[in-house]
Amino acid sequence: MELLKKKMIEEGAVLSNHVLKVDSFLNHGVDPVLMDAVGKEFAKRFKDQAITKVLTIESSGIAPGLMAALTLGVPMVFARKRRSLTQSEDLVTAKVYSFTKQEENTISVSGKYIHGGDNILIIDDFLANGQAALGLVELAEKAGANIAGIGIVIEKSFQDGGRLLREKGFRVESLAEIESLEDGIISFKQSKAEEAAHS
Amino acid sequence: MELLKKKMIEEGAVLSNHVLKVDSFLNHGVDPVLMDAVGKEFAKRFKDQAITKVLTIESSGIAPGLMAALTLGVPMVFARKRRSLTQSEDLVTAKVYSFTKQEENTISVSGKYIHGGDNILIIDDFLANGQAALGLVELAEKAGANIAGIGIVIEKSFQDGGRLLREKGFRVESLAEIESLEDGIISFKQSKAEEAAHS
Repeated sequence: MELLKKKMIEEGAVLSNHVLKVDSFLNHGVDPVLMDAVGKEFAKRFKDQAITKVLTIESSGIAPGLMAALTLGVPMVFARKRRSLTQSEDLVTAKVYSFTKQEENTISVSGKYIHGGDNILIIDDFLANGQAALGLVELAEKAGANIAGIGIVIEKSFQDGGRLLREKGFRVESLAEIESLEDGIISFKQSKAEEAAHS
Repeated sequence: MELLKKKMIEEGAVLSNHVLKVDSFLNHGVDPVLMDAVGKEFAKRFKDQAITKVLTIESSGIAPGLMAALTLGVPMVFARKRRSLTQSEDLVTAKVYSFTKQEENTISVSGKYIHGGDNILIIDDFLANGQAALGLVELAEKAGANIAGIGIVIEKSFQDGGRLLREKGFRVESLAEIESLEDGIISFKQSKAEEAAHS
């Protein structure tokens, strides 16, 4: 997605070979126009999948997830990283290890809002080691839902998450795939569509 | 806002005289069509205020904040309740005490994204004791920004927050004001516009 890649190049800060900071437009500051375009792009890619619900995780998945859900005309649910006081019944949980924060979180979703018969589109801001996405997959499966696909705003293709999810048979659509952050430069992986256009 | 009140009556669960659970459409499950309408209503109410930025707080403020920002054509920033690993420079912080969770959180925003010259619209999902809103006010003021107003999805008018904020001179616009949750019933406070229409 060219608009997203342009924004990443203009505003992203490469902090190390593994870390890209995009907090001006995605996970602290949020660009609503870009999120609208991101949501429409996800909706376009999954439009034939009869999605019934978008599942994401707080906090940075909410903006792209909401815009995808709005375009698809379905509700969104965001999994919580911390238990809410008023969220007690029918909780479905999964454990997620964060490599960056070096801690394990229990994420949860209410079985009232994700259940059998649902055809879920999972949305998240980043895909790196895939722990968060695998946690969302586990939540949806435990709740008895089907997973139609996984939409990621930015995939770090040099880490394992994308491979892990695709090997499990999930359709993963990433709007920008980073091949490398070496030497402080964002190198994008060419998508198949782009390769075809240039051949 | 009638659409919101209707949804609260249909789907809200009164858990006690103080607690209304609206996690089917606002703070766990999220209704994107309602959030779109909520955002447009905030934008309408503050359209003459030359807003430059919407400031909200993770996680439940993000959906209404994003839709307001999209309609107003300005960026959104969400304050964090936990420090992010890649969020280090220029941090502006405030302490917020949560009565429901009985704990103090340090909320933060990057001074890169809120600063002098900004005319801020603060958005949050609930207004009860006003601690979160006062924390956001403190963040915006410490960052040197002006606060144009505060938009709240659901205000519990029987708690102190609204009075505190209005006494400080802030314009607070709440889309639904709950006068009481006694006997398991949501009683709404009539807005001035509604009083005028019925007189």
